Amino acid sequence: MKFDVIFGGVSFEHEISIVSAVAIKKVLGDKISNFIFLDSSHRFYLIPATLMKSKTFSSGEYKKCTEIFLQRGSFVKKSLFGFKAIIPNTLISLIHGADGEDGSISALLDFYHIPFIGPRIESSVMSFNKALTKIYTQSRGVKVLDYEILTRNSPNPTLPYPLILKPSRLGSSIGVSVVNKEDELEYAKDLAFEYDDSIVVECFKSGVKEYNLAGCKIGDEFRFSIVEEPSKKEMLDFENKYLDFSRTAQVLKADISQELEKQIQQNFAKLYENAFEGALIRCDFFVIDNEVYLNEINPIPGSMANYLFEDFALVLESLAHNLPKKHSIKVSYKYIERIHHAKGK
Amino acid sequence: MKFDVIFGGVSFEHEISIVSAVAIKKVLGDKISNFIFLDSSHRFYLIPATLMKSKTFSSGEYKKCTEIFLQRGSFVKKSLFGFKAIIPNTLISLIHGADGEDGSISALLDFYHIPFIGPRIESSVMSFNKALTKIYTQSRGVKVLDYEILTRNSPNPTLPYPLILKPSRLGSSIGVSVVNKEDELEYAKDLAFEYDDSIVVECFKSGVKEYNLAGCKIGDEFRFSIVEEPSKKEMLDFENKYLDFSRTAQVLKADISQELEKQIQQNFAKLYENAFEGALIRCDFFVIDNEVYLNEINPIPGSMANYLFEDFALVLESLAHNLPKKHSIKVSYKYIERIHHAKGK
Repeated sequence: MKFDVIFGGVSFEHEISIVSAVAIKKVLGDKISNFIFLDSSHRFYLIPATLMKSKTFSSGEYKKCTEIFLQRGSFVKKSLFGFKAIIPNTLISLIHGADGEDGSISALLDFYHIPFIGPRIESSVMSFNKALTKIYTQSRGVKVLDYEILTRNSPNPTLPYPLILKPSRLGSSIGVSVVNKEDELEYAKDLAFEYDDSIVVECFKSGVKEYNLAGCKIGDEFRFSIVEEPSKKEMLDFENKYLDFSRTAQVLKADISQELEKQIQQNFAKLYENAFEGALIRCDFFVIDNEVYLNEINPIPGSMANYLFEDFALVLESLAHNLPKKHSIKVSYKYIERIHHAKGK
Repeated sequence: MKFDVIFGGVSFEHEISIVSAVAIKKVLGDKISNFIFLDSSHRFYLIPATLMKSKTFSSGEYKKCTEIFLQRGSFVKKSLFGFKAIIPNTLISLIHGADGEDGSISALLDFYHIPFIGPRIESSVMSFNKALTKIYTQSRGVKVLDYEILTRNSPNPTLPYPLILKPSRLGSSIGVSVVNKEDELEYAKDLAFEYDDSIVVECFKSGVKEYNLAGCKIGDEFRFSIVEEPSKKEMLDFENKYLDFSRTAQVLKADISQELEKQIQQNFAKLYENAFEGALIRCDFFVIDNEVYLNEINPIPGSMANYLFEDFALVLESLAHNLPKKHSIKVSYKYIERIHHAKGK
């Protein structure tokens, strides 16, 4: 089967989305028919496979490619006689951060009836806003680190230092600071408030064990990746993240007990079910004193976490055949008709 | 100033959205320039004011009107030389239920840069799904009635009877049942699961005091409506709801203490701030033993709750001048450029 890939988007992750799409091209090769780029002015372009290099985008050369438009059932390009549909395949959404992970693109694709692999509106919103992720995660019976939410008028946090401050709605590490003592707080707050009106504050714990697990639900079965222990950095800065998103080489399974692996999978399932169907997600966990805590949910992980799966293409294909169906709604006019009937009109 | 109104949508509230739009036309008169109808196949039509009668839609006559399309900055209609923009005004979203309140239309309008009065994606999602509303409300320090969430494999609820079962994602009363004893449960579950995979179960309390408050935040100030005690029904069935959505006559202020009015306003503000900016919403509360509980948030209330305001048009105008701005994001290519530079390309 064939896929299309959509990437780019107006976000701080615009570049890593490009990197991610180039990586997926390496992995899936000619299983991908169409590359669709969303540029900084919210225009869509159809990019030939031969031009799928990061320079095409940074140089602006992509603007010479065909501009395409969303219409019901497919993207279309202008032709002599109006519009011509581009035969659609299941779309893989690789727009990280804003536009892609905040629910916008999902809403558009759903509205225009284009099948896609990615989070739906609801699960996008719950995972994009870290403050909502916290309450969602707790409601699913999964542990999170203690936290406080700051808005511009909030008093200073009461959690003990060192703290980590994160803008609520940024996927990348931009605007994130570790604050060791109170006199560093104002600067960190100012920085984070540049990106969002809401900040999530947590205790910063260095040296904590981290484990990542990707997967999806296909029919009634979960398809889990291996559990990875990501290479240790105090904090994944943007440059490292950039490299992280271009990964295509298989990684080794973390050296953990079967018991812990199972616990991590169970926590993943609690978060995924009845919410993330249709998406291949990666959940990043902390393990502290043998307890599993959610760090974050990546509903569109860098290069789709391909490097964690032995049979990545197969997983994607199975998922594409098992996308969630919307409850069908039949529009009716029975009350209007009844009223007109009663009025004798 | 002028407004446009968008209504219809693929939802069980399609009809009441039409009723709501007709009511708003009565209230705002020629302050409305364009009526935009979203039909059952997700096509948009421009409806002349003279045709704004429910029969235009139930008869299918609307299909003779001009079909319009969403493009960046405006809706457009086909013309001899491509497309012609329809000069946009601030849009009032009156699409109740799915499409409108689930975040879809908000995502589309935001994506295409069309200013609108209505909930943004995040607040739509939080208020549309009753299960998410519960956890959101609690996280804001506002009380909710005890509840349980049922999915298809859940054991039966443990709350004491009588219970009320509601599909998580329907705005209207469809699929809702009051269950007095266990042997009525299966039927009620089957009914609700026809509409959603998730059901919210609460204890059904008859004779509870209910109070509705509408409002919005304009700059730093809240503009509250009067508090209304809605006319008492065991449950607002669809037909009554239908009538409810066509209300245009001013109602009387509920006979409550200043203290309780203030408490209700404070609870409203906790739910609204940093979430619903840009929308005029109505919150429906229960009061039990002098404690205020949220029943539900209507992010697009029927006929915009115009009947609760003395200066409805003025409130809308002020809100239109104070719509939330998105944090501006500048797309950058600095890492891609740095890497190309390092490679000497």
